[in-house]
Amino acid sequence: MNTTAYELYYWPTIQGRGEFVRLALEEAGADYVDVARRGGKRGVPAMMKLLDGPRIERPPFAPPFLKAGKLIIGQTADILLYLGDRLGLAPRDEAGKLWVHQLQLTITDLVVLIHDTHHPISGYLYYEQQRAAAKLRTKYFWRYRAPKFLRYFERVLAKSGGPYLLGRRLSYVDLSLFQIVEGLRYAFPKRMKRMEKNIPRVVALHDRVAKRPRVAAYLASKRRIAFSQWGIYRYFRALDG
Amino acid sequence: MNTTAYELYYWPTIQGRGEFVRLALEEAGADYVDVARRGGKRGVPAMMKLLDGPRIERPPFAPPFLKAGKLIIGQTADILLYLGDRLGLAPRDEAGKLWVHQLQLTITDLVVLIHDTHHPISGYLYYEQQRAAAKLRTKYFWRYRAPKFLRYFERVLAKSGGPYLLGRRLSYVDLSLFQIVEGLRYAFPKRMKRMEKNIPRVVALHDRVAKRPRVAAYLASKRRIAFSQWGIYRYFRALDG
Repeated sequence: MNTTAYELYYWPTIQGRGEFVRLALEEAGADYVDVARRGGKRGVPAMMKLLDGPRIERPPFAPPFLKAGKLIIGQTADILLYLGDRLGLAPRDEAGKLWVHQLQLTITDLVVLIHDTHHPISGYLYYEQQRAAAKLRTKYFWRYRAPKFLRYFERVLAKSGGPYLLGRRLSYVDLSLFQIVEGLRYAFPKRMKRMEKNIPRVVALHDRVAKRPRVAAYLASKRRIAFSQWGIYRYFRALDG
Repeated sequence: MNTTAYELYYWPTIQGRGEFVRLALEEAGADYVDVARRGGKRGVPAMMKLLDGPRIERPPFAPPFLKAGKLIIGQTADILLYLGDRLGLAPRDEAGKLWVHQLQLTITDLVVLIHDTHHPISGYLYYEQQRAAAKLRTKYFWRYRAPKFLRYFERVLAKSGGPYLLGRRLSYVDLSLFQIVEGLRYAFPKRMKRMEKNIPRVVALHDRVAKRPRVAAYLASKRRIAFSQWGIYRYFRALDG
């Protein structure tokens, strides 16, 4: 009999989009299992069964998805919308809920842009097969898009008074913004170092999240998968101008 | 004194992401004004003021955004999450709300992919400056991504029993899927014609939505902006293989 409150289903070897959910579950000290990491038949095959199974009434499009009792929820931001309420990581009033979700959807947009710097043509081709396009896409990403997004979050922090995006209380989008900073530092150490001078509040939020006891314990544990060349954030010297 | 229930803020000359919101407001017969289309100072400058104004406590990242009383909501899917409840375009139970929102977020992902077929490198360059990359990106989009997304919605319709994604009742995501079909037909008439043979339920949903009295009246009105070479969907013969 399974009495775990939450089952997270995501690819077991990368942080990817699943990491935004893992961070929320970890910060809240939630009772969860990272299903695909169990390995064997109870791992990835169990995940695929929920994706493709004929009996699944409301199939998710792709991992990550969360199982909570009978409910299956796909799409990272939708999962966080659901968990925010239950884990105390979102405001209780409707306007606050919509606002934190709006910020999370802006993170979603940014994640696609970060991924596409190294894969501007297709995820079905290797980086080496689209290197020229990747260099150009990365150049424009760092010239226009990354500053626009990061300065937007800086501005939201200035308006809220910080230290978190909504003010004094942590919400799930703070954990996601922490993860964005982590990822950009991994993929673009030189570019990010220059950028960080312009976004001190975002950097301070990152540092504050990293020191939260449960987040710190998680980051130091084996549950935190290392960055690699297979996730959203990948390091290529040629792209880090 | 302004007594309009909803103010939509979006670029006045394109369908773009604003169209998903317009369709919901129109189908519901909601009392709204499409602010930027008023022209003059009360148009786009009024929109920019809400985006950049120092007094805006919770600024949206970009259009579209909706003003409802004092509430300002950005991000298309977040706007629909809010309107779904109020306009009777979403289920009343939490699981249903999360499900229709999950589907909408999958539409969001697809919209980015469609846009990037003609602008794989950057929105700051002309199509002509990235034509080779666009051709390749489009090839892979139609080989893998478009079929995966469209067949997913076909499968959801098969499971729900149709005619709508949630079954017998229309929800906001049905209007969005209608718009995806419209857009793909405009941008890729040949490719889409071939694709439609494999997604009869999606096509039937499109046709059914188009015939709904308020949608039909809207589509025939001047409020419906025509497709053009400036929106998400653009027609280039070289991309429509």
